[in-house]
Amino acid sequence: MPTAVLSALIRPMVEHRIPAGVDARYFASLDEMFALAPEAEIGWFDLNDKEPMAEAVRRATNLKWLNSIYAGLDFLPLDLLHQRGVKVTNGAGINAIAIAEYVTMMMLVHAKGYRDVVRAQDRHEWLLDSPGKIELPGTRALLLGYGAIGQQIRPRLEGLGVEVVPVRRSGADGALGPDEWRARLGEFDWVILAVPATPETDGMIGAAELAAMKSSAVLVNIARGAVVDQKALIAALEAKAIGAALLDVCEPEPLPSDHRLWDLENAHVTMHLSGRAQNSMFVRSAERFLANLDAYLNGGELSPLFDPARGY
Amino acid sequence: MPTAVLSALIRPMVEHRIPAGVDARYFASLDEMFALAPEAEIGWFDLNDKEPMAEAVRRATNLKWLNSIYAGLDFLPLDLLHQRGVKVTNGAGINAIAIAEYVTMMMLVHAKGYRDVVRAQDRHEWLLDSPGKIELPGTRALLLGYGAIGQQIRPRLEGLGVEVVPVRRSGADGALGPDEWRARLGEFDWVILAVPATPETDGMIGAAELAAMKSSAVLVNIARGAVVDQKALIAALEAKAIGAALLDVCEPEPLPSDHRLWDLENAHVTMHLSGRAQNSMFVRSAERFLANLDAYLNGGELSPLFDPARGY
Repeated sequence: MPTAVLSALIRPMVEHRIPAGVDARYFASLDEMFALAPEAEIGWFDLNDKEPMAEAVRRATNLKWLNSIYAGLDFLPLDLLHQRGVKVTNGAGINAIAIAEYVTMMMLVHAKGYRDVVRAQDRHEWLLDSPGKIELPGTRALLLGYGAIGQQIRPRLEGLGVEVVPVRRSGADGALGPDEWRARLGEFDWVILAVPATPETDGMIGAAELAAMKSSAVLVNIARGAVVDQKALIAALEAKAIGAALLDVCEPEPLPSDHRLWDLENAHVTMHLSGRAQNSMFVRSAERFLANLDAYLNGGELSPLFDPARGY
Repeated sequence: MPTAVLSALIRPMVEHRIPAGVDARYFASLDEMFALAPEAEIGWFDLNDKEPMAEAVRRATNLKWLNSIYAGLDFLPLDLLHQRGVKVTNGAGINAIAIAEYVTMMMLVHAKGYRDVVRAQDRHEWLLDSPGKIELPGTRALLLGYGAIGQQIRPRLEGLGVEVVPVRRSGADGALGPDEWRARLGEFDWVILAVPATPETDGMIGAAELAAMKSSAVLVNIARGAVVDQKALIAALEAKAIGAALLDVCEPEPLPSDHRLWDLENAHVTMHLSGRAQNSMFVRSAERFLANLDAYLNGGELSPLFDPARGY
């Protein structure tokens, strides 16, 4: 009988639906998790703190299937998971709707200069004109990353009249290929980063890419801080070489209170909140785990599978 | 040869395209406008200040066609225009895209509690959780008013997964009829007011309508302040009887700095900026005027026609 080691936080959502053939054990503390980890054939070790999750994986020497609510798992010992042949299911798409909504909102907030409207209400000041006057129809967005999140972003922006050009390996269906987008950067009003965190995407937007963008163009990062060369970005924002950066992610997180990004009026810092702006994440994740558990017991396919060798 | 009396602000956009058969006169001051008004067969008297516009109309005793960039013309002597049989073209739809974008933004800002994120950035504070967690798919919006603005709102919200139910005279195509929506108010997460300002829409949302709404429901008003009984609204917001009010319009405008609405944390005051959040309004309006001028000279139809008797 396989042993499943699961967080007590998940317990109320799954306990009554765990099949009879599974020995489910729940941990409510780090010590309990570390003690149970070596017995786990199935593990769901999610915590807010990521280093102990990595440690649990190292100790879980009998692990065959690791599940997580997180989409990016770059903080885990991926080489070890790969060597041990552990199947990994992640949270890809769990928060895709919330993130896509956030991207849409941030773009509109930039377009209308809405932060200044919020501040004016706080001062009881009636503004006589709109601080922002961009309309979205006729603008063009380059969408880097066309996974679960990118696919939720596209129809929302198209509903607002934005022309969305995704970057895809195949380059099919109006998409640009991975070798094509850099030469076309100057054609876009919005550059949206929704790529996975991998060695290849690390620093993919640097000084050269920022220099190639329109001076009014807006960089939207809901991927990982490391995807952008942040020093080059700050320099570009200070020089107003681009229009704005809408940053759900940055480096480091949390951002220290004296960091330059906070005060740049053309930087929007949204504290990695986009995926959290929903109530359904845990419910969706529990449902997906139970469906995968059924597949696991019956020799079916687990989904979505995370590949530790590729890093997404 | 018809005399057209036009604001000097319009001059650069229309002058080189006025047909030879029109005597175009431009005013750069109130005195010039009042002096020219009696000669006007065609008048475009738009000013930021509305009372002198009404006065110009009263003095324009030879007027046959009045044009305006504004959609709502309730501040003009409509009875006089009706008696004199003046054709009136208004700005209906000129700012529909910008307003629809604003509505979409405000709904997302409410859903994600984004104003608190703006304030946190201003304090250099890294929030650990999203102040708002509403996702839009599965929510339902009642759309009162299905003119140019309502028709731009609908596809934007549908792109975000909102089910939009318009109210239309006919009640066709999934719409509710004018006598049906009140009984259904409790079914909606969003109640969006995009109706024209007429005696019939005056106070159409009062204490009874607010009480019939869900306690989490959000009222969005981009019509006119007078469409809502503002005292009843403030009472409902103070009692948290509804979730929030997103108010592009209110009474009076501008709102005095000591008005209660500014400080209600569930009231968003956006200072009638929604239609101004664009750069294309004057260009669109000039294009429309020139097309109508051509129709006027050649016996064609003017559009969009405003009916002074109905008030929209």
